[in-house]
Order: sequence, then C-alpha cells, then structure tokens
Amino acid sequence: MVRRVRAFGPASIANAVAGFDVLGFALDEPGDVVICSLSEKAGIRIAPMTGAFQDLPTDPDKNTAGVAVQSLLKKHGIVQGIEIEIQKGVPIMGGMGSSASSASAALVAVNELLELKCTKMDLLPFILDSERAATGVPHADNAAPSLLGGFNLIQSLEPLQVLALDIPPNIFCSVVHPHMYIKTRDAREILPHSIPMAVATKQMGHIAGFIAGMQTGDLDIIKRSLVDELAEPHRSKLIPGYWEVKQATEEAGALGCGISGSGPSMFALSQSEEIAKQVALSMQKAFSVAGLKSDLYISGISKLGARILD
Amino acid sequence: MVRRVRAFGPASIANAVAGFDVLGFALDEPGDVVICSLSEKAGIRIAPMTGAFQDLPTDPDKNTAGVAVQSLLKKHGIVQGIEIEIQKGVPIMGGMGSSASSASAALVAVNELLELKCTKMDLLPFILDSERAATGVPHADNAAPSLLGGFNLIQSLEPLQVLALDIPPNIFCSVVHPHMYIKTRDAREILPHSIPMAVATKQMGHIAGFIAGMQTGDLDIIKRSLVDELAEPHRSKLIPGYWEVKQATEEAGALGCGISGSGPSMFALSQSEEIAKQVALSMQKAFSVAGLKSDLYISGISKLGARILD
Repeated sequence: MVRRVRAFGPASIANAVAGFDVLGFALDEPGDVVICSLSEKAGIRIAPMTGAFQDLPTDPDKNTAGVAVQSLLKKHGIVQGIEIEIQKGVPIMGGMGSSASSASAALVAVNELLELKCTKMDLLPFILDSERAATGVPHADNAAPSLLGGFNLIQSLEPLQVLALDIPPNIFCSVVHPHMYIKTRDAREILPHSIPMAVATKQMGHIAGFIAGMQTGDLDIIKRSLVDELAEPHRSKLIPGYWEVKQATEEAGALGCGISGSGPSMFALSQSEEIAKQVALSMQKAFSVAGLKSDLYISGISKLGARILD
Repeated sequence: MVRRVRAFGPASIANAVAGFDVLGFALDEPGDVVICSLSEKAGIRIAPMTGAFQDLPTDPDKNTAGVAVQSLLKKHGIVQGIEIEIQKGVPIMGGMGSSASSASAALVAVNELLELKCTKMDLLPFILDSERAATGVPHADNAAPSLLGGFNLIQSLEPLQVLALDIPPNIFCSVVHPHMYIKTRDAREILPHSIPMAVATKQMGHIAGFIAGMQTGDLDIIKRSLVDELAEPHRSKLIPGYWEVKQATEEAGALGCGISGSGPSMFALSQSEEIAKQVALSMQKAFSVAGLKSDLYISGISKLGARILD
C-alpha cells in the first residue's frame, strides 16, 4: 500500500457569466497541491497550510479538505488515520473556488491512498458536503469542474446531473484577483430573492445561446451570449472599478468578462493565449486605477480536473 | 409578373416546455394556406376565412396576415392593392401559433407576388409587428419557427437573434387541442411578474440541458430537461385534466409533455411516429375523461417553415 499520495486540485470559475449557479469550468492553473499520508494515529489531522495562501483553519471540521475526507471515510466506514498537508495555490475567498480545489485534491489523494476505486462522480457528493459546510449551500459549480475538469453544466443538484460541454479550441481565460475580500455569504445576500420573469427569460436566452455556441464552436454566438443579468447588476457594486475592468477587456478583444464566482476576482475569456495575456494586463491596469493591487493568471480550461501527481 | 401566389404557413409550438418565451418549433402540419393576388383596387382586402376555422376578422388592421402584409408594404413604399384569402388549418386561440401561421404564409406569398426578394430573416420583423398587434407584445417564439422552420432559440428580441438548433432524427410531436379557449392575454396575466431567483436558476439548468441534448442528439438528456418551472405551475390551472393528460403521455412513452404556447393545446415529443400516435391517443382519452372533446395532430418538426406552394 502506498503511504503518501500527492494530488492537484485546480481553481475553477463558477457562473461563467451566462450561467449563474449552473455553469463552471476548471483552470489549468492555479491550483492546490494536497498531500495525504497514512497515519498510525486515528482521525484526520491537517498541517498548517503552506504555499502562497496560508490563512486557513487546520481543524478538520472547519477545513473543506478535512470535511470532504471525513465525509468520504464515514461513508465507507473507514477509521484509518490520515495526515493532510495543503499547499495553497488558489487565493482564499477570491472567488476562484479555493475550497473546492483543496477538497477535490484531497479526495482524489485519499481515494488513491486507500485504494477505494471510487470514480470521480462517486467522489463529487463529498465535495458538496464540504461546500455546504463552507457556505451553507451545496453548490456544485466549483466542485464539479475542480474535480471532473472541463466546462460543466450543473443541470440539477437533486438528482446530481452534470454535463460536460464541448470547448472550442484555443479558448483561454484571464483571471485577475484584486487584493480585497468578499465573503461568499455576503455576495449571496446582496442578490435579490426574486427577479422579474422578463429578466429570467432574457437570461434563459443568454445561457441557451451560450450552450449552443459552445457545442457548435461559434465564437460570435459565445461572445453575444456572455451576459449576466442575474448577479452582475448587484455584485458588481462590491468590486471597485468593476465596469472599468470590464470595459478594458472589451477594448483588449476578449469574448466576454464577468465576476469569477462570487468575486472579487474577475475573469475574461479570449480566443487565444496572446489575447488573454493582453486582456489580463488591461484588467490589472484598470484595477490599479481603481486603487487595487491584483494578481493575474492566464490559463487554459483544464480538461483533467483534480488528479494524482505522484 | 405572377398574379396569384399560394403559400403555406405551419403551426408552431412556442415555449417547448423548457424554454418559456425563448424556444419554439414548427410543425409539418397543420398549417394555414394563404392566397395572395394582385388587385387593381388599392389597399389590402381579406376575404372571409375558409378552411376548418373561420372565426377571424377580415379587417386588415385586425387580422395578423393583414397587419403583417401592410407593414411589409409600408416599409417598401408599395401601394399595390392585394387580395388575401386565408384557408385556416390551425385552430384559432388554440396555442398553436395560429396568428403567426397566417402572417408567415401571407408574407412569403406577397414577397413572391411582388418579387421583393426579401430573405426570411428580412420578413421576420413584419410578423413581429402583427404579433404585437394581436397580443400586445412582439413575441417571436411562434413567428420565427412558423416562418423559418426548425427548432428555434429566440436568443434575443433586440437585436433580433434567432438560432436554429439541431434536431435529433425521428422526433415526432403529438398535439391535442381541447375544445375550449384561452386568450393569450389571459394566459399571460396568470403568470407572476416576478419569480424566486432559485426557480430562475433551476429553469436555466433545464433549458441549458435541453440545448445540450438537442445539439448532441442525446434523448436521455432531452427527456430530463423537458421541465417547465415558469409557466406550467400557473397555466396548468387553466386546462382541465392537465396533469392527467401529462401523466398519460409519460405512461405512453413520451420524452416530455407540456402546454403548447399559451394553451389550451398540449403537446408531447416522442422518439418515433408510432409512439407519438399512441401518446396523442392517450392524451385525447385523458382530455375526454376531463370532459373535453379534442382534436389531435401527429407531426414531424418542419425544417421548411412557411413556403410557396404554387
């Protein structure tokens, strides 16, 4: 039996502009590296975080990797002690699916470590348990892409139905993470509980067009479908310089731009890596004008999702 | 110059369960046949209706074919007199796009008669004018499929963006028209002006899945996506026996069932003509139990839309 497994769980972009609460996709980078080892002491122990971002609890009941692994072990009636080390590469509370990154990496690591032979779809519910613990609701729009990879439609939560969309070649993502915090819970509370029927049907046109554009690889359709009438009008208020950043992506040639998950990170999709680089720089500049320092990431869409490194 | 043109405009099914206000598809039958002739008298004159359904005004300002043709002529600065004869094959106020059927047939007929050389997309706005006159709002979910044919996503009205979805082979539609009336306006007024955000996002999952299912030809995905959380909970109250009819379609093996447009017709999609026949009969039987006589139609999805007959 292997004594130690190292796994990678990528960052992910939930909502993806057109699909509030139902779309999400995985990035090639950044991601979290999680190392799980067998321990002779019972229970789950999490070492203090290492990596670029460290301000997370080591209490396994308060850390999403810990919650997910405990949920998995409980389901399988396993009492084996496990030590978890997390090298955080995904910004915490940045809107890039940080909690799902750790949890997805931890789950594939433990699955390998204990030779559980679970499929990724078998593992998905345990990340949802950890997402529920972190945010109060079991959203899958980060969990599914971080674990499964790809551009996912979370068609329904009960029963859990996830579809992998076709992805046109050479689509690249620019993500800019401004140095500020928005709690997922606060970003939820700023949204209205109800919306006009007419807004709902307009947004249905956007997401339906987006799916058709992805499945046919038609970038013009994708571009005109990257519209968010549900969350953006409200959440944009939480992000200084939001509209200037968005304007900058248009001028730099992006296909579309919006809030990454519940923010404050913003992302844009572009039709080449070169454009995505220019777009990211223009976003960073616009944030700077708004008084915010930021980090930028240029990434393809990961088809792999969480995976064993060694 | 031809002196007389006969054209066909098919019935259409708006909403198509998963896409309230944004999806619609054309039927092979029934449809309206419209005959347009040059007249030496100025203006538009409409003869008393012939065909299966006749209770429509002949005032060209109150008849959708008349409104559409006048709008087309006005746009082109044409004062030529035209006589219009309408053989109604589509039930009036049945929820099968009757007004769009007449208007689409009339437009393609006049386009040919006057050699205007308009494309169908050029003609579409003139049906919208007639739909606005008929219902107060310029919906395109009957107009576009009746004119263009196919299974359409009306992605947006302004600007007018219509996408043609791929259609899996052998999909057949059963439509049952109970002998009762629902005015489009009444069917609109029973809908809430606002809906919970959570309902909107669930419906986005349904329509997004439906589009993915259509584009990939996956009947399982189509089947589970044919869900309407927006209109059905309210409009079903206007149709006696609604849930029993729907139940009957499930038992007969349909992929899905719902209200056709604003009702009272109901329709179901099935994966063969044979199943569609059984489904239609079971629907008719369930309506009968609810005390309603009905007519039934079995049809493929028309890829042609409105067209010149001779």
